[in-house]
Amino acid sequence: METAIGVIASIFTTLAVLPQVFKVIQTRSAEDISLWMFICLLIGVGSWTIYGIFKEDWPIIITNGLSFLFNSIMVYTKLAYSKPPPK
Amino acid sequence: METAIGVIASIFTTLAVLPQVFKVIQTRSAEDISLWMFICLLIGVGSWTIYGIFKEDWPIIITNGLSFLFNSIMVYTKLAYSKPPPK
Repeated sequence: METAIGVIASIFTTLAVLPQVFKVIQTRSAEDISLWMFICLLIGVGSWTIYGIFKEDWPIIITNGLSFLFNSIMVYTKLAYSKPPPK
Repeated sequence: METAIGVIASIFTTLAVLPQVFKVIQTRSAEDISLWMFICLLIGVGSWTIYGIFKEDWPIIITNGLSFLFNSIMVYTKLAYSKPPPK
């Protein structure tokens, strides 16, 4: 039971950033998004990945490693679409 | 050493959403923000909190409980500021 809840929790927290990435790409607009939020998340999930490596805990490494990848894509997308396209 | 990294990771992942909340309040604009991202985060950190309660693991309960609170504020802020103010 706890394991099932942990799996659900991992899936939702890891994949949460993807709707934001798709929204920015679709609307080509990222003005309202805080770069600091995603930099904090990168530091946070990056630290969790290092923590997982020290503890040799694969679920922590995989979920946070994926989060790091998705948040990196989000930071790139934010920077790429931050200025509105010329009209 | 691992504990220190875990504490840093917890602080950054828990507080990451706050710069986004402040940015939306300052700019009074939240059009670009994905509601789905924060709903996924609410389900995710809510599940982690329940997981922590099952495991009686206070660091998991406190960090994810706080995340749930901050993400709830973000969802409220997103809904409140989603439409641009009349000019």
